[in-house]
Amino acid sequence: MTGGFTRDDLSDDEVARRAALYGPFTEAVRGLVDATIRTTVRDDEIDRARVEVEAITARLRQQQLPGAYGVSYGPDGRGRPWGNSVVGLRNPIAPPLVTERHESGDGRVWCDFHLGAAYEGPPGLVHGGVLALVLDQMLGESAGAGGRPGMTGTLTLRYRQATPLGPLRTEAWIDRTEGIKTWAKGHVAGPDGVTVEAEGVFILPRWARDRASVDQG
Amino acid sequence: MTGGFTRDDLSDDEVARRAALYGPFTEAVRGLVDATIRTTVRDDEIDRARVEVEAITARLRQQQLPGAYGVSYGPDGRGRPWGNSVVGLRNPIAPPLVTERHESGDGRVWCDFHLGAAYEGPPGLVHGGVLALVLDQMLGESAGAGGRPGMTGTLTLRYRQATPLGPLRTEAWIDRTEGIKTWAKGHVAGPDGVTVEAEGVFILPRWARDRASVDQG
Repeated sequence: MTGGFTRDDLSDDEVARRAALYGPFTEAVRGLVDATIRTTVRDDEIDRARVEVEAITARLRQQQLPGAYGVSYGPDGRGRPWGNSVVGLRNPIAPPLVTERHESGDGRVWCDFHLGAAYEGPPGLVHGGVLALVLDQMLGESAGAGGRPGMTGTLTLRYRQATPLGPLRTEAWIDRTEGIKTWAKGHVAGPDGVTVEAEGVFILPRWARDRASVDQG
Repeated sequence: MTGGFTRDDLSDDEVARRAALYGPFTEAVRGLVDATIRTTVRDDEIDRARVEVEAITARLRQQQLPGAYGVSYGPDGRGRPWGNSVVGLRNPIAPPLVTERHESGDGRVWCDFHLGAAYEGPPGLVHGGVLALVLDQMLGESAGAGGRPGMTGTLTLRYRQATPLGPLRTEAWIDRTEGIKTWAKGHVAGPDGVTVEAEGVFILPRWARDRASVDQG
């Protein structure tokens, strides 16, 4: 039920129903996160909001998973990483990125997204580490989209120019593969072009190696 | 007032008073973020929580900064990056890290911290990109602690083993300097030792170069 890969055999309809319930709720909490950083209301309003937030949290905690969310998957084997820090439908920390991919299986993935006040490093700019977070996810998704899922082995980022908060685009693709290793590349671009480039090596996990050998016969 | 470096000349007492107000409020929102991911209460309870959260957010937004938080500083020149994604006292996305440093000015910084459900990538494990986010901040703090503040030029991460969610420690230090460049190194360690190593190059910003030349002459 938690903290692992869990097969739950939910129907597509049930998955859609849950997404329609938890998606808007999580989006509401994202709005609160933004307002928490930016509000300038009176001190007593802050205290009142704190007491109310604590009460909501206490009600939500009356029944909860004992640990982190993990990854659920259905009969088709497609994972639902709803707790993921970058793409998680139920994680208010995730912007969230909703990635698109070529159906050709060449590992090309991309996403238009928006980063607001919660992702700030230097004033008005995206935190360099947030860009690393986004690109680690994107390069990993590229490897997975190319049929080469993996854990990050190394990740290298080159910051070409500052990245302003606001609308951004990110892309990633597989550069080459060799044995259990996949080299993926990608970047983030702002209104003035590419701001950060990334290259990563992803290591095919044991279960995927076993599956590959089974697939091969 | 927002989106930049802003001198506000607050007294130490006023800074302490604001920290005592916004710190617990932001911590309450962090609790809500965690509960949002982990709750298993009934659907009508989720909807009720959503409506209440939206109402709190609307009240907080009645007066707010027009954009991101920026960095305020007082007469002593010490910055208060309260919106920062990693260390921000007012940012619910930040764990937050509270870093310690040697007074010797050698750039050594460290921090014990805890990552819960919001920072998950693979089931039960810290997202590789979150580790990059933490290490970018730590290496940058190291450069700053050594009197060499800078924007990230490059950042390289080597993932040695999986990092479990839970209690962690991170350290960073200055490896060497050359002209406007500072090389910083660091790592994150879990219960079984170092899990990720990082090296980064930080570029001294123009204003710091100017200040250095003023200091020298």
